[in-house]
Amino acid sequence: MSKKIDVGVLGATGMVGQQFIARLANHPWFNVCWLAASERSEGKPYADAAPWRLATPMPDSVRSKTVEACEPRRGPAVVFSALDAKAADVLEAEFAAAGHVVLSNARTFRMDPLVPLLIPEVNADHLDLLSEQKSAKGWKGAVVTNPNCATIVLAMALAPLRQFGINKVSVTTMQAVSGAGYPGVASLDILGNIIPFIGGGEEEKIETETLKILGTDGGRSRLNAVISAQVNRVPVIDGHSMTVSVDLLTVPSVDEVVNAMRTFSGRPQVLKLPTAPVPPIVVMSQENRPQPRLDAGLGDGMTTSVGRVRVCPVLTHKFVALSHNTIRGAAGASILNAELMKAEGFFN
Amino acid sequence: MSKKIDVGVLGATGMVGQQFIARLANHPWFNVCWLAASERSEGKPYADAAPWRLATPMPDSVRSKTVEACEPRRGPAVVFSALDAKAADVLEAEFAAAGHVVLSNARTFRMDPLVPLLIPEVNADHLDLLSEQKSAKGWKGAVVTNPNCATIVLAMALAPLRQFGINKVSVTTMQAVSGAGYPGVASLDILGNIIPFIGGGEEEKIETETLKILGTDGGRSRLNAVISAQVNRVPVIDGHSMTVSVDLLTVPSVDEVVNAMRTFSGRPQVLKLPTAPVPPIVVMSQENRPQPRLDAGLGDGMTTSVGRVRVCPVLTHKFVALSHNTIRGAAGASILNAELMKAEGFFN
Amino acid sequence: MSKKIDVGVLGATGMVGQQFIARLANHPWFNVCWLAASERSEGKPYADAAPWRLATPMPDSVRSKTVEACEPRRGPAVVFSALDAKAADVLEAEFAAAGHVVLSNARTFRMDPLVPLLIPEVNADHLDLLSEQKSAKGWKGAVVTNPNCATIVLAMALAPLRQFGINKVSVTTMQAVSGAGYPGVASLDILGNIIPFIGGGEEEKIETETLKILGTDGGRSRLNAVISAQVNRVPVIDGHSMTVSVDLLTVPSVDEVVNAMRTFSGRPQVLKLPTAPVPPIVVMSQENRPQPRLDAGLGDGMTTSVGRVRVCPVLTHKFVALSHNTIRGAAGASILNAELMKAEGFFN
Amino acid sequence: MSKKIDVGVLGATGMVGQQFIARLANHPWFNVCWLAASERSEGKPYADAAPWRLATPMPDSVRSKTVEACEPRRGPAVVFSALDAKAADVLEAEFAAAGHVVLSNARTFRMDPLVPLLIPEVNADHLDLLSEQKSAKGWKGAVVTNPNCATIVLAMALAPLRQFGINKVSVTTMQAVSGAGYPGVASLDILGNIIPFIGGGEEEKIETETLKILGTDGGRSRLNAVISAQVNRVPVIDGHSMTVSVDLLTVPSVDEVVNAMRTFSGRPQVLKLPTAPVPPIVVMSQENRPQPRLDAGLGDGMTTSVGRVRVCPVLTHKFVALSHNTIRGAAGASILNAELMKAEGFFN
Repeated sequence: MSKKIDVGVLGATGMVGQQFIARLANHPWFNVCWLAASERSEGKPYADAAPWRLATPMPDSVRSKTVEACEPRRGPAVVFSALDAKAADVLEAEFAAAGHVVLSNARTFRMDPLVPLLIPEVNADHLDLLSEQKSAKGWKGAVVTNPNCATIVLAMALAPLRQFGINKVSVTTMQAVSGAGYPGVASLDILGNIIPFIGGGEEEKIETETLKILGTDGGRSRLNAVISAQVNRVPVIDGHSMTVSVDLLTVPSVDEVVNAMRTFSGRPQVLKLPTAPVPPIVVMSQENRPQPRLDAGLGDGMTTSVGRVRVCPVLTHKFVALSHNTIRGAAGASILNAELMKAEGFFN
Repeated sequence: MSKKIDVGVLGATGMVGQQFIARLANHPWFNVCWLAASERSEGKPYADAAPWRLATPMPDSVRSKTVEACEPRRGPAVVFSALDAKAADVLEAEFAAAGHVVLSNARTFRMDPLVPLLIPEVNADHLDLLSEQKSAKGWKGAVVTNPNCATIVLAMALAPLRQFGINKVSVTTMQAVSGAGYPGVASLDILGNIIPFIGGGEEEKIETETLKILGTDGGRSRLNAVISAQVNRVPVIDGHSMTVSVDLLTVPSVDEVVNAMRTFSGRPQVLKLPTAPVPPIVVMSQENRPQPRLDAGLGDGMTTSVGRVRVCPVLTHKFVALSHNTIRGAAGASILNAELMKAEGFFN
Repeated sequence: MSKKIDVGVLGATGMVGQQFIARLANHPWFNVCWLAASERSEGKPYADAAPWRLATPMPDSVRSKTVEACEPRRGPAVVFSALDAKAADVLEAEFAAAGHVVLSNARTFRMDPLVPLLIPEVNADHLDLLSEQKSAKGWKGAVVTNPNCATIVLAMALAPLRQFGINKVSVTTMQAVSGAGYPGVASLDILGNIIPFIGGGEEEKIETETLKILGTDGGRSRLNAVISAQVNRVPVIDGHSMTVSVDLLTVPSVDEVVNAMRTFSGRPQVLKLPTAPVPPIVVMSQENRPQPRLDAGLGDGMTTSVGRVRVCPVLTHKFVALSHNTIRGAAGASILNAELMKAEGFFN
Repeated sequence: MSKKIDVGVLGATGMVGQQFIARLANHPWFNVCWLAASERSEGKPYADAAPWRLATPMPDSVRSKTVEACEPRRGPAVVFSALDAKAADVLEAEFAAAGHVVLSNARTFRMDPLVPLLIPEVNADHLDLLSEQKSAKGWKGAVVTNPNCATIVLAMALAPLRQFGINKVSVTTMQAVSGAGYPGVASLDILGNIIPFIGGGEEEKIETETLKILGTDGGRSRLNAVISAQVNRVPVIDGHSMTVSVDLLTVPSVDEVVNAMRTFSGRPQVLKLPTAPVPPIVVMSQENRPQPRLDAGLGDGMTTSVGRVRVCPVLTHKFVALSHNTIRGAAGASILNAELMKAEGFFN
């Protein structure tokens, strides 16, 4: 690729915005040239506007960049949206209407039947929705979304099992505090504690988004399965763990399930996208893995780890799954979506 | 009661032994007169022999008591066993044979068809096994056990649901580090982390013990249900949480389930046993409860807390349950067993 | 005492207000009859107005009490102030002017030369300021304050050393998250981390309040010593620990220092005040104590624990000190102040 | 450099051994060709012998390497010692005697007057001891040590201040659990807790090693200063923090102190050693930094972070310092020592 593609970040000063900037800093294809945020930050150098909270230092390339307002047509054609839901509700459609390709981490359009809820390894063909999206919405650009940070763990782990007929899924999540943004969860609430609830409809998101992602016809035909989610917040910094029980219609052997996961691959691996994990799913053989602190960072945070695959006496199989929630579950997901769109010719 | 009953503690210097001593310090019925431990501690004052690790100070009444060897016939008729499994394998039968009533927290005899695996609110009638135990084993005394610290949470929460026909149960536990004893879990393994595995057959214990407890004929006729357990160790000090999905044959309404739990009661409440929680199960109405740090101590650690009772799309109902693992799940459980036996006339 | 004294709580719905209510629930002398808070809560039953966050359940006696506005003359003569600094700045003087005795946990009047900054064991005679306070301020009532939650640990530990001539003090604190209120410290900031800073002038408070408390003439003549404080926030729920180095002019032996601490006592112990810890300072002999999780609760949270008293090669002595920050350092401190005032006849 | 230098690791299967292997995996100068451990591991492939506990996966290059016995003359000329103290007491001298250059993380020889206690930025000239070491000990090889993991933070931060005349130092450390090895600190002891003590003479090590490091004549002439250390274990995974108060004879301004630290540099930076941090000390300007979770990884774990430099009313200056204890404080320190020795021609 001779020249990098200019990209912008909407909501650049928040936690997710910072993660976009950190992950894009040395990206081989994309160049962050435009940082947009709320009025409060407008006109300030990024280093002054953003209360940087990541363990990796702020990239020098953005320190002195002036933060601009989140207005369409001012930035480049491709923008990553780290907007919170309220801002995204208004702005993402405006950007798409004005011709921008919006790669969104917000929930606003995730369940819109004309908007791909994309995991490149799982449902790359959902991008086919975009032509209809364009005409139906009258947008010159497009919106493509990535799933909720817990959904993506489950959808990745289930994707290889579609061949066995997924009938029922029961999942209990143990979600890291970084999934709640900043300031997010109060330390008094979570130090040495478990909170068996996450607001904002977390369980419903997991139950519905997963069926769209694993569905056909761009997700308009949902996977014909039933999912039950029980969520917990746990005192972990990064990495959403979950125990999964699944009822598979063809009742494969445990070895067949493990093999399906281990050999699973998709368009990102075929196209050798820059941040595609190889393989996308690692099935660990140790009996006490995966663990968030040790394994969330695998594949630079893009790998989904699975362990303890075994027979379930209630449904047919059970296992543990884990992904890095702010990488595979947020900024990294959107960036892989952008890589896929670029490689498939949706922009250049 | 005019005079307290003398009791002893086997394995008095370990973590569970310390919990027995702390809980028995001001007990209205029992008086700890005999402390027994391994040879290493024999002959020492308790204050020197026991590396006290509880947040409540060591009771003055035991500080200068001399620790004796774990030999039958030297201590009182009633002994609590805080022995580890290996020591219990040998010693508990010796004590029972010699005429002691052994209230055991060890796993040795839990699944023995002639030994009650007792939760006084749930299966007080399992004490009927004792006459047959005596004759079949040739013991002058008896052994009565309490369940594994995670099992008891599940069995307590399920007990009120027996009337609806328990068919299937899927449970994911999040277990506190105090459940692993001392030194137990290394801090490097669990700080900011989740370990999706607990050794020693924890999942099997939950799956099998629960069916015995909820069974009939002293547990020899197991509950006709299927249980699947997935266990996790979490960075919590005290309190085992669990998400539970259950398939109830008569498909009661959520209100009926809640009502069954709230009105559940048993022999300890009827007999007004000194440490019986009233009520034994609290169903919390807040959407984010129960939480171990806030709720494990309810009822002086003897209450089981339940929350988020709702419909499950995969099985029929789901909820969250919690108990204090070192109290309701260990020392407190054995003490309540002893109170029941005393009140029912098994010793005096 | 024939009849309990009615008391009120200003700022009753916040974290400190909840602690007052929890600690006063079964107080032998005081009866909480009046709960006052901001307009947002006015008119609501306390159970609805207060987002209860303590591990001990809300006392039944306050559940249905109606929260009233923080207006003078509506409540009883004695009020505890759990107001935040901004509200306290305005309201406490109004209550005092109107004739109420205000026992305040806020910082507003702590350094006022006419207001006692009271630790009953340490400077009970500072109550002598009240007559001058009354005349100079024109108040019919009075304001008495307790120190910052870290100050009190240091002041308690230093009080027995006044006899040796305190010349210099260097202290490094490790402060629990409960000291920051709710929501307080974000979990993302403190899980598995140390923050070497606490806002609001924490270090200055420790350095200046301590000199007033240990001073004479009601604190108007400050202790002639130099204090240097370095503060840290640590992932601990309750209990402020600190390492202290002190330069004592008469250079006592370590045994003399330990003995001075162990025999230290004050008016609360003489008067046998209901919540007075006996002794006020415990010097632990184990080399790895005091520890917040094990020792903050000593004396029902009112004891100051000290350990590792030894020679310091830079100053003369060094040791570790610990108190419970929300009890001895907040609500419990104000209540002990009230007990002293009652016993000394300042109100009845 | 045309060809990499073969190196070995003694104690390769333990935690420090694993850190050596992880840090050496892609080292531009060194090639790990020999893994030695205790008899228990001898003959096994490394992947089977080592219970890998790092968050970075085990390098493929060592997985199938056979672990050999810790015997001199079997491995390459240069060996890193991750031996525990007991094994090091015997083996390191044997390896040195046999001609190996031993770069040791063990405490055995740290205070030996003929053995450099080396921090390349601070006392590179202490390598001059080696000729005398050779003759006096009759070793064909040599032993070079790195400091205790807390000492190195203090020594690095003090090194730039030597020019101002270091007179007195008072330091309180807050040390991560990874500093205690594996299993190290029990989770029951440290979750939500602070332990104000670390065994093995930690305070003495800090007080004495620092004076040798900052001394002259290879450390045989100690720095003429007094150091007082108070240590704490805190629930942090990686990164030792400390508050430091220092008495500087020339009483420089705060700006002069900051400037001295910021411009500090040494032989590793001059020689552009592969893992030399540039600059070695970062002075952070934010009032709440450095923090272990955010800053321990700076400079790939080799940077020392300093913050909050200010006047101390008791001594002359105070500040906060932080380094990564298992990198700058252990494996990374030894590797930088090796790089310096290679660059200075001590081996090739």
